[in-house]
Amino acid sequence: MVYDAGVKRDPKVLKLCRRYLTWVQNSVFEGEITEGKYKMLKREMERVINRQEDSVVVYLLQSTKYTGREVIGREKGGETFIV
Amino acid sequence: MVYDAGVKRDPKVLKLCRRYLTWVQNSVFEGEITEGKYKMLKREMERVINRQEDSVVVYLLQSTKYTGREVIGREKGGETFIV
Repeated sequence: MVYDAGVKRDPKVLKLCRRYLTWVQNSVFEGEITEGKYKMLKREMERVINRQEDSVVVYLLQSTKYTGREVIGREKGGETFIV
Repeated sequence: MVYDAGVKRDPKVLKLCRRYLTWVQNSVFEGEITEGKYKMLKREMERVINRQEDSVVVYLLQSTKYTGREVIGREKGGETFIV
């Protein structure tokens, strides 16, 4: 999940993402999440952001079979999430 | 591809990403890329960044069958990339 929100809403979005996912860098998060929790996250996100100004993009990887993750340089996030 | 690079290197990384991928928001890019081009991008990236300080994370989606993309709020990037 990556987001770009206005200065006022940024800390709120950050806090919300942290509750559900793992911080990777800047405004980038990743994590394993159930469908139910993901729906909750989306509902909360819609209340927090300004839908005309802010943008949240979610990349869903339903299987780990055809997906991968590579790091060039440092691993920044606190926890490592291996797909 | 998401990146977090020092102020000096940031514009260089941005420029490099733009040559291979489509800008989504902030330091987030996406796109379809061949294995050969991806290798070239990685090689160039390793020359541009400081590997001790900067971080580039790549999420590889090899099949569109088990992956998805959702937007909450605005679509920011110039071009839309549909997975």
